[in-house]
This record gives sequence, C-alpha cells and structure tokens, in this order.
Amino acid sequence: MTDIKKLSASAPIGVFDSGVGGLTVVNEIISQIPSERIVYFGDTARVPYGGKSKETITMYAEQIVRFLLEQGVKAIVVACNTASAYALDTLEKEIDIPIIGVVKPGAKTAAETTKNGRIGIIGTEGTVGSRIYEQYISRISPASHVVGKACPLFCPLVEEGLLDDPVTDEIARRYLEGMKGSGIDTLILGCTHYPLIRTTIERVMGKDVALVNPAWETAHALKDLLTEEGILNPEAGDADLKKHRFYVSDSAEKFGRFASTVLKYEGISAETVRIEEY
Amino acid sequence: MTDIKKLSASAPIGVFDSGVGGLTVVNEIISQIPSERIVYFGDTARVPYGGKSKETITMYAEQIVRFLLEQGVKAIVVACNTASAYALDTLEKEIDIPIIGVVKPGAKTAAETTKNGRIGIIGTEGTVGSRIYEQYISRISPASHVVGKACPLFCPLVEEGLLDDPVTDEIARRYLEGMKGSGIDTLILGCTHYPLIRTTIERVMGKDVALVNPAWETAHALKDLLTEEGILNPEAGDADLKKHRFYVSDSAEKFGRFASTVLKYEGISAETVRIEEY
Repeated sequence: MTDIKKLSASAPIGVFDSGVGGLTVVNEIISQIPSERIVYFGDTARVPYGGKSKETITMYAEQIVRFLLEQGVKAIVVACNTASAYALDTLEKEIDIPIIGVVKPGAKTAAETTKNGRIGIIGTEGTVGSRIYEQYISRISPASHVVGKACPLFCPLVEEGLLDDPVTDEIARRYLEGMKGSGIDTLILGCTHYPLIRTTIERVMGKDVALVNPAWETAHALKDLLTEEGILNPEAGDADLKKHRFYVSDSAEKFGRFASTVLKYEGISAETVRIEEY
Repeated sequence: MTDIKKLSASAPIGVFDSGVGGLTVVNEIISQIPSERIVYFGDTARVPYGGKSKETITMYAEQIVRFLLEQGVKAIVVACNTASAYALDTLEKEIDIPIIGVVKPGAKTAAETTKNGRIGIIGTEGTVGSRIYEQYISRISPASHVVGKACPLFCPLVEEGLLDDPVTDEIARRYLEGMKGSGIDTLILGCTHYPLIRTTIERVMGKDVALVNPAWETAHALKDLLTEEGILNPEAGDADLKKHRFYVSDSAEKFGRFASTVLKYEGISAETVRIEEY
C-alpha cells in the first residue's frame, strides 16, 4: 500500500459496471455524497457479464481498473455483482487505492435484516454460482441459511422495458417459486438491474419478505471508507452534475440517452474507450 | 486478390459467430458438404452482438478473421446475421480468400419464395436496423416490399431453453403482431437462434407464411462458391467428425457441452483463444 492519505480528496471516484446497471449505484452515490466527482465506465461492448467465466470477467475488470487509475481516481467501486463476485479479491491485491464491491455491503445488510436467519439471493449465473454472498453472510452470521437462484432472463426483460408486465410476472413466478417455499424472510437483489423490477418481485414474494438493494448500502459503505481513509471530498455538494464523467466501450450516444433517463438529468454525454487496449 | 486457386482444397473452412448460434450453420455445412473440415470460432466472451454498434462489431469480426486466417482457412463463412450485416463489406475488402455471410443467401431465397412480393425479416436490433436484407432483396426483386422487426428477447428465451413455452408464445405474438397484419407471405429468420423456435413462430404467423432459414441456403451457396473457385475438397465425406475444430473466447468446457447437443455428436472439445490479441 502506498500512502493513500496523500491522495487528493478532490480526486474523483471510479465506478464501473458491465453496462448501464451500475448507474443505479451512481444514483445512490450522488444522493448520499454529492460532493464527490464520479468517473463511470460501462463495458457496453462486452455486456453482459452474467453468464461468462471467472477468467474472462477478471481480465475485463483488470483492464477497466487500469483505465480508471489512468483517470486519477482515489477509490474504485465495482458496481456490478458478477464482477464483484469474480474479480474483487484479485483486484484488491493488484492496486493500492481503496476498492469496494456491491456484494459485501449487500450481504451485511441482509444479515442485519433477517429475523429467522433464512436469506435468499437472486442474481446472474456468475454471481449465484460463485456462492460469494453465502461466504460473506456466513462470516457475519454463521447460523444463517442462504438460498440462491440465478435469474438470467431478468436482465433482458428489464432492458426490453417490461418492468411491469404479465410476462415478467410469469417469469418471476417460475424463478422465485422454490425461493418462496424455502421460508426466507429476506431477499437480496443481487444484480443492479433488479431494483427496476422490484414491484414485480415484491408482488411474487409477498410483503413478509424484505428486499435488500445493495446499491444503497454500497454508497453508504463508500462514504464510511472515504471518511476512514481521510479522503472524503470536503467541498459542499453542489448541483453541478456536469462534473461527472462517463465512458463506455461501445456507442457513447446510446449510453448517454439511457444514462440521462436513469440519472434524471439531461445532456449526459459519454466517450468511447477502446478498453481492450488497457 | 492472390491466386486463390493455389489454396489447397484440403484446407479447412473458417466459420464464425458471436457465440453458439452459428452451429446451426455448421450443421448444414456438415450435412451438405461432409468432405469439408471446419474451424469454428464462437465469440462467447463478447456475445451477444445484436445490440452493439457497427464499429464494435466490425472490430470484433476483423480480429476473428485474423485468427481464422492464421489457422490456414481457404474460405470464411460469417455465420452471424449481425456480423454479416455490419462487417461483411469491410471484411471482403480486407482479405483475399472467399468470404460469405448469411444475409445474401437468405435474401435470395426469400426473393425466390415470395409470391406476393411482401417479405418480413426478424432479427437483432443490429441486423434489422441495418436494413441490409432490404438492400439485397431490392437488388434481386426491386418491386418487393420488406417489413423488418427486431426481436431482442428471442435470443435470451432460446438460451434459457424456453423453446416451446407460453412465455415465448406471448412474446412472439407481441413482436409479430404488426408483421401478421402487413400481408407478408414470407418471413426470414434473420438470426441463427430463431430456427430453434421455428414452431412457435409458425404457430403465430400461420401456415400461409413461408419461413426462410438462411443457414440451409448459406451452406448451399458455400458449396457453389467452393466449386466455382475450384477449391471444393475432392475427398469423399466421412463420418470422422473429430476433424472439425472449435475455438471460443470464453469457457471452452461450457461451449463443448452445448456444441455436442446442437451438432449431435459427443466429445466435442473446444479451445479458448484470447481473441482481443488478434
């Protein structure tokens, strides 16, 4: 570790995701620590990450981290569950600035939320197959029982805009049937797309199951981390959203339009980066 | 053009796709010209291509073609509609061996099949947005009228195995509603995944609409091309399917299992290639 205290508190925070899903985490960061500047990278040319191997995802994450370091970021948020599950351990060893993923904060909240010790986790094949949420939860609360279920169609359904639709209901019923019968009282939305179909998931699971969205807790954990490290930006938060920067590996125009919708401010422009050269 | 006649007729044929869909084209080639050896590349690390930009897809296709050339192929088949739509023109100028895509053969068959001159094309956003099928069809049959519709959920539904399922029926009804009312008598399955839900599409469109699968016609066009160029492999076709080779950019094991199912022979093993280094 180099002396991270020397890092300028005014440096930006790097946030990355396989595509647009990580913008839900950006939203939380802007809302909780508005003084921070964000450099976002969305790997839109190689999205999705969910069904791909650990080796491939780790290589992609390493390239993105090299790009973000070149932008002078003081900390990195892996705003993608699959990349957090597969690559965070490796990345932590390779860089000397603070880095956090979405899995650990999500696991912590779930362990604190459950009353009966039975927690469900839904996500991509990669995230669920890695059993990473189970590992974190069992460290905090060894007696907990965790049930996982991969939901590969949720992302395409969200991207097709079927957020409140009988087809999404039907698919959710099939995916969550076993989960419902397992007696869980807490369910982690282990993919950044899932909060967008929260209403559907709630309808299927019923009101007695608490839904955990790791995005909120991740922004919170980031604030704590920056404070601990003494690198929280001391400036007052301002409404100048133009200070954030956005990069993608595919079409910048398409991303800019989508980001404007998610982040609810107009005129977001992104820049395309040839990420495989990093 | 170098003298392609010098190319050894016994050299293999390169076939590539964004992932596994191109195996339906491989199946047709094996069945129509069993004497040929195939070197297949599936870009499973960067799949899907359907919603990505022309620039990105062209760059990916160029890398794959460089890899295939290194394997000593005598001809290349772009067994992916999106890559054919976006990159074929560029690739044709860059290499000096014969190269064909799936679009032109599919367009030709559709133009020959229609009786009322009204043709539908379904595919990815990239394929449909490029209007490439319309361009080819209007050259063959200028009076034809072509209706296109992108069906982004069909691929994930096929990959989730919902080949004959009420959800796929419902999505197909929504996508194809406008198509049904447009009076077409011929519909091109403009994505290599779609033949796997042919029954569903047939059920929605009704028996009076002929479905065109470009895979069959592509294998046929390849045979004609090899014959014209004098590089058709003169050996008798044999049952030694082990002669074919498979490469992917992500997990070889996962692909091998899937390919064995599609190609209906056991023990297919693939090899992982770091395609971004090409």
